[in-house]
This record gives sequence, structure tokens and C-alpha cells, in this order.
Amino acid sequence: MTQIAAIIGGGVIGGGWAARFLLNGWDVRVFDPDPDAKRKIGEVLDNARASLPGLYDMPMPAEGALTFHETVADTVAGAVWIQESVPERLDIKHSVYRDLQAVCAEDAVIASSTSGFKPSELQDTATRPAQIVVCHPFNPVYLLPLIEVVGTDANADMLSHVEDTLRGVGMFPLMVKKEIDAHIADRFLEAVWREALWLIKDGIATTTEIDEAIRMGFGLRWAQMGLFETYRIAGGEAGMRHFIEQFGPCLSWPWTKLMDVPELTEDLIDQIADQSDAQSGMYSIRELERHRDANLVGMMRTLKARDWGAGALLNTYDKTLNQTLRIAEKIDDIADLAQPVLTVDRAVPIDWTDYNGHMNEARYLQAFGDATDRLMLIIGCTPDYIANGGSYFTAETHIRHLDEVHAGARIQVKTHLMMGTGKKMHLFHTMYEGDRVLASGEHMLIHVDLATRRASDPAPQIAQNLTRLSDAHADLARPDGAGAAVGVR
Amino acid sequence: MTQIAAIIGGGVIGGGWAARFLLNGWDVRVFDPDPDAKRKIGEVLDNARASLPGLYDMPMPAEGALTFHETVADTVAGAVWIQESVPERLDIKHSVYRDLQAVCAEDAVIASSTSGFKPSELQDTATRPAQIVVCHPFNPVYLLPLIEVVGTDANADMLSHVEDTLRGVGMFPLMVKKEIDAHIADRFLEAVWREALWLIKDGIATTTEIDEAIRMGFGLRWAQMGLFETYRIAGGEAGMRHFIEQFGPCLSWPWTKLMDVPELTEDLIDQIADQSDAQSGMYSIRELERHRDANLVGMMRTLKARDWGAGALLNTYDKTLNQTLRIAEKIDDIADLAQPVLTVDRAVPIDWTDYNGHMNEARYLQAFGDATDRLMLIIGCTPDYIANGGSYFTAETHIRHLDEVHAGARIQVKTHLMMGTGKKMHLFHTMYEGDRVLASGEHMLIHVDLATRRASDPAPQIAQNLTRLSDAHADLARPDGAGAAVGVR
Repeated sequence: MTQIAAIIGGGVIGGGWAARFLLNGWDVRVFDPDPDAKRKIGEVLDNARASLPGLYDMPMPAEGALTFHETVADTVAGAVWIQESVPERLDIKHSVYRDLQAVCAEDAVIASSTSGFKPSELQDTATRPAQIVVCHPFNPVYLLPLIEVVGTDANADMLSHVEDTLRGVGMFPLMVKKEIDAHIADRFLEAVWREALWLIKDGIATTTEIDEAIRMGFGLRWAQMGLFETYRIAGGEAGMRHFIEQFGPCLSWPWTKLMDVPELTEDLIDQIADQSDAQSGMYSIRELERHRDANLVGMMRTLKARDWGAGALLNTYDKTLNQTLRIAEKIDDIADLAQPVLTVDRAVPIDWTDYNGHMNEARYLQAFGDATDRLMLIIGCTPDYIANGGSYFTAETHIRHLDEVHAGARIQVKTHLMMGTGKKMHLFHTMYEGDRVLASGEHMLIHVDLATRRASDPAPQIAQNLTRLSDAHADLARPDGAGAAVGVR
Repeated sequence: MTQIAAIIGGGVIGGGWAARFLLNGWDVRVFDPDPDAKRKIGEVLDNARASLPGLYDMPMPAEGALTFHETVADTVAGAVWIQESVPERLDIKHSVYRDLQAVCAEDAVIASSTSGFKPSELQDTATRPAQIVVCHPFNPVYLLPLIEVVGTDANADMLSHVEDTLRGVGMFPLMVKKEIDAHIADRFLEAVWREALWLIKDGIATTTEIDEAIRMGFGLRWAQMGLFETYRIAGGEAGMRHFIEQFGPCLSWPWTKLMDVPELTEDLIDQIADQSDAQSGMYSIRELERHRDANLVGMMRTLKARDWGAGALLNTYDKTLNQTLRIAEKIDDIADLAQPVLTVDRAVPIDWTDYNGHMNEARYLQAFGDATDRLMLIIGCTPDYIANGGSYFTAETHIRHLDEVHAGARIQVKTHLMMGTGKKMHLFHTMYEGDRVLASGEHMLIHVDLATRRASDPAPQIAQNLTRLSDAHADLARPDGAGAAVGVR
């Protein structure tokens, strides 16, 4: 039977919760007096629909039903989960709980999105304190997995049900053992926010500079390992104890001017070292380094494809690396037009390899796709040309995987233009590591009008460049494997 | 002419600098009295060679020469950049600078990796203060782009040269305007470290829990946007001012118990709001949300492919989503063996689309590769079987791109086993969105012995499953496009 979640308070956080439950197949009932609530939640849902399902390699359940209600009583009808995301004022929250508990099921979970209040404070004055628990999410709620779950002794019996429910909608419930103001993550966010305010106030850095200081450096580390696993690596084979002994005193020096710092007693060092062993002791430092590096390479290449943050920097540097125009940018850059054109020359990234230990089959096509993009650029199908409505689409591809290649190897693709007349462009790419042939990629592309998505003739300049290059390639031997079909000798 | 960098002090940081310069074509000369220095730097270099070149889509320069030297004088011969990474003690650093300045070129840059000291402190007692500047890197130095560059009035003339040099080796120099203890990034790291020590000391959280609180939540946000751009989104269309006014007072409440907090005056709010406009004002909040979501999806899918952190959680959830075995895991899960097997059923992730606005050609092969992996699993070529030394490699692929598909669309692949005898497996995948055919993928796979990397017969159980499925598929019509060659009608 479809489960029902009641969302008390829309907005960005409530809307994110609504999206998370809906896309996981729950029915969602919303109470929010804001006249714009429907539009606002609709916008969050649009974002969630565009992003969340693609995270999985399986279809998500059919979306539940979303309804909006005028009264709290109507909203919570049938709800087994009630998510409260009203403003962060204790008097408002207490009043909401009174209203809710007068009408909701006694065994429903009342979860608060509060980032600051302790569950004991929320439970105070409640009819049934045991029903109320902190479930603090992070924006965007539909994508980020972390939920801080904080209860009191009163709701000890309910917490495993809360944990299971949150896992059931794809989240990562962090079961916080002791309640404190601001739970765990917001302690860090507040510490950083306070530090950032000082840096701006004192004219040390701007918001841009602070954001770059984070996302070009430790932000990338924290996205995949957090704080302690990162520092475990810094400590080397000697481990966490060594790190603290080496860096602890030096780090404490600027702190002490500002604030109260825990003393690094032997007991505290032991505690941290033991916990770190339990957390990461199954990996050697070398293994951790390699995991870290592969994670970083993958994430930075993702940002590169989006030309964003640390990835945008990589794109800029690619231009520096190609200052000698080793890889041509236009047809006149090519020294010898009669030879196949060098269209790819690169190292195989770590994240292009798979469980067989070699470059994954799809990455062969990615490299051939890059080679095709480069040839398009060379004949004048530039980003500007594409922005003006013309491009080439690949219609057909034939790949022969002839040999394996591994991460770090330098590969090159050379491209033979077999035909380039009218709407068609027929390419034959050969991939090498040194002299060793790794693969061939044969591709038929069609020029399209991006407005109609139909085949169309390319601009005269492109047609002319295609003729020039295919004439120059006319004397090349027909490539081995051209025109072959799968399984046909 | 090849440029020369001198590395004073090896270890993890010095080794990272050595790798960064070497792989960017510089000659590198190392001074480190540690007898293990050669081995340690060699290990860092191995990691760097495996990861850094693949970040770029261009070949890096030919690697420079790495040499180790007995004396400081010998080490700095010809060096235009001298990177000091000795222990964080001011007296040691002063003594190293005295030795360096007695023998190095007067126009060489002496850059300190210090994370804590101000440049004025480093320059104190130096023969030529103007030569010494802070260039603080982040581990792993060969991958992370951030470098905090901090100078004093004494070296104002040198800073643009320092900036250019660092950009020239692919880094992101953050030019810090005013010197303070610990520069910018380490102020944040120290604030978080201090907070983490309290949380452990008070028994609130373990190192594991703290790391999860970071990497399952705000760590992912910070890797791509940092602090202020993230909060700008939280403020909604009303912007940064709204965020501070809404969350500022509430956030300040737990702070004030612990420490000195800057007062949120109108002036400070204006300053932050103006800087945030200058930083991110070119995007609407909706645009920022979409960039953020696409970045997060890409990074989380990267971690998923590596089964790490937030990505490991996605893999676990995939199993939950497939609890009904909608996608078969073994041959007996299949209800009707006589039909093509459902091998992929998923949404198109945001990061699978390209500049043409549709799913990129390489992602078609990624989906077909996933379909092949699933069919391998179904016939018994499981992770255990692969770990024991048998697998299938794709030898040949033919793809017909018949129609476009966009991010968020639900796609399915159905697989026809055309032949499965001996070492060979011949698959024909058809990709659909609903009833619309998007593409076909025809593949010849060969069973291999992973030890010899040569063709070999599969285990009897696999051969038997292949026969069972290919017999059941024998009556299926020959798929449209099977056996076709590129450009052949």
C-alpha cells in the first residue's frame, strides 16, 4: 500500500522533502499557508525530476500523488510520516506540534527539519513527546543523502523505524548519539560561517575568494573522504597518532588567540587514533591515496565536462597544453593534409577503466567521439556554428576493440575522412598506443538543422573544407576493417 | 629552455611539488637529508603519474629530469623556483633561507609551503626579504589546484610572476590580499578541526560519523560551489541579504556560547551581499540550482562507479529498487525466456547529455555496456566468476543511432542473444523510450582467461545457460539492422 507523508511547511526544505518522498513512490500531502506554496514546490519538483532518477541504474517507483490541504487535520489524514519544516522559532514549533498531535495518528513519526534545536527542546510541552524526533536534512534534500537523526530517551523505541524509513527513500540517516545544539554538521557549518564573516569583515578575502579557497582545495577532499580519513593519509603509514602529534601543536597556535581549544591529552589522541583505525584501518595509506586520487580525478573530470569550478581550470589548462597546436584547431593548422589527422592525443584517465582492469568499452567511443568533435572543429563546425543552429549527429558507429589499454597510457587517434559530401561525413578513426593499434571506429555522421532536427546541408565553408580534406585523403589506403559488420568475416 | 625547480624538503608536500613540476616538463632538483627521500618521492610520483595526466584532454609535456643533491648550493644551481617545505618551525625556516640566499640566484622565487606563518615572519632576518613568498599548497599537491599566495609590500613586484608560474603548472593561485596567521583555507580547516576535537572528546560523534556528516552532505556542495554560492541558493531569488537576515540570527545563537562572533551590522550584510552579486549575479537562482544539481549528479555518479562514499549508498539503493527483480539477476528470474531480455531500465542522467542537448553518443554505448554486463550476470558471469579469472571482452560493436533522447527520459534496453556457443557471445541490444526505438547495439564478445588475456571456453554452467537462452531466442525474428556495416545499404 502506498505510504503517506505529510509536509508541514513548504519552502525549499519542505519542497525538497516532498520531492524525495514523491519520487520514491509515496503520496505527499502538503500544508503551507503561503499562497505561492504550490508554485514553489512545483519548481523544486521540476529540479528533482530532472536530477534524482538519473542517479540510479534502476527505475524509481511510479511517482506518488501530490495534494495541497487547507487544514492540518486534513493534511495528516493517513500520514505515517509528518515532516515539520516551519521557521526556526521554538514557540512556533511548539504550537505546530500541539496542533498536529491533536489530529495525527499516535504512531506517526513527527520529524523536525530543525538545524539548531535539540529534540528535548522540541518535545518540551508536547502531548506525546516520544513522537517527535529531529531529522535534519541538507539542501537540496532530493539529492543529498545526509539526514541527522537525533532523539531522546523518550523515543528510543522509535529510532530504528525512523532509520529504516529514511533508508527506504534513499537517504543516509546519521544516528546522533547525544543531543547538542546544532547537531553535528551545522557545528562545522557555523564554525566556518563565523570564520568567513571575520575574513570578510577584516578585508582579508571576498566571498569569491573564500569560495575558491574551498572548492579548489579541501572541498574536493571532503566530498569523498571527510576530515579524518583525509588527515589519516597526511599522517602517512604512521597513522592518525602521528598526524596529531606532528600537526596538532602547530595547528593549535593560531587557534589559541581566538578561542577555547580542547587539550590534546594522551587519552584524546588514543581515542581519535582508535576510531580512525576502526574507520579506515582496512586500507593501507597507499590504498587510501589511490582511492582518493581516483575519486578526485573522476569528480574533477565531471566538473570539467560541465566547465565549472576546478573543472573550468582544467579546460583553460588544456588550451595552454595545446599552445603549439599539436592538435589542430582549423584545417590550416594541419601540416600534411594527405595523412590521417591527429584528433586525440591524451592519457587514459583512471576513471576510464573498469572491473576488467582495462579501458571500458564505452570510453573507446568517448575518445572516438572526442576525435569526431575535433574533426568537426577543424572543418569549421565550431561552437559558434553550433550555437547558430547547425551541427553533425552520429547516425552509425562500428568499433573493433583490437587490444587492451590501461590507465595512464598515452593514446592517440588519427582520423581518415573517407567521404564528406552533401549532408554526410564518413570518418574512420584509428586508436594507437605508440605503434600498437588498439581499436578502430568507423562513423557515419549527418549534418542537421538543430531547429528542425532534420538533415540539412552544411554551410558552404564546411562543405569546402570537407572537399579539401577528403580530396587530400583520397590516396590513402582503404583502412583495414572499413565497411565490416559484426560477426561477418 | 627547460626550467628548473629546487625542492627543499621532500616528504608528502615536497614530493607533491616535485611531481607537479616534473609532469609539467620542469627539471626538478631535490634536497632532503632523509635517507628515504628518494623512495618517498618515488611513491608520490607513481601516484601522480597514474592520476594527473588523465585530467587533461591533451598530452602533457615530456617529463623533466629528477635529481637528488647533497648540498643546498648544488640543489639550487640554475633554479628559478625554490620550494621550501621544511618543518613548521620559524627558526628552522630562517636558517634554511639564510643558507639558500647565500647561494641561489637573486631573482629566483623562494616559495614557502607554510600553512601557518605569515610572509613577514618568514622574511624577518632574511638577506633579501623580497625574494620570499608564501605559496601554500594542498595535499595531494599534484592534483588539487589551490595555492594560497601571500606576500608583503616587499615583494609586490614579484607576485604577478609568481602567479603566472603557478598557472603555468596548472594550479589555481589565490592571491591573498592581507597576511594573517594560517592564510584563508586553514582558518576554516582549523575551525572545523577544533570543532571535531570537541565532538569526539564529548562523545557526541566518532571519526566515522564526523566524516559521514561531511561527505554525505555539505562536502559535496563545497566541492563545486563553496560556502557563499551555496548559501546564495538557500536565500532564493531574494538573494544573499535575505539569507543572512533569515538565518543569521538563528545561526548566531549556538555560536555565542562558544566564542567571539562578528556582529551582523548593516554594513557587513551589504558587503557580503554586494560581493555575492559580483560573484554569482550572472546566474539566476534557478540557474544556480541547475548547475549545482548537475554537478552533484555527476560527482555522485563518479563516486558510484567507484562504490565509494555517497556513491556506495546509491549502489545499495539500486538493490532496493530492484527488489522485485524487475531486471533479472539470473536466468531463472526471467519469466518468458522466449522474449528479448530486459537488461536496462533507467532514467537518462543529466550528465549523459552534451552540447547538442541530447544523450551523447558514448553514453549509448555505456548503456549498451551496462546491458551486456547485466546479460553476463544473468548467464552466470558474476563478480565472483570474474574474480576467479574468467570474463567476456567486447571485440566488436555496431551502433545505429536512430533517434534522440534527453535527460530524465526513461530508457529500456532489451537484449536478443543471437548466438552463444564456444568462446563467442553475439548480442543484439535495442534501446527504447516507451515504444520509440532510440538505437540498436550489436556486439560480439569473446570469453577470455584473465590470467593469459587470451580467448578461452567459459565454465560449463555459463555455456549451458547460453545454450538455454539462445535456444529460447532462436524463434525471434532477426533484428532490423543486424549484420549491417557503416555506410552500406
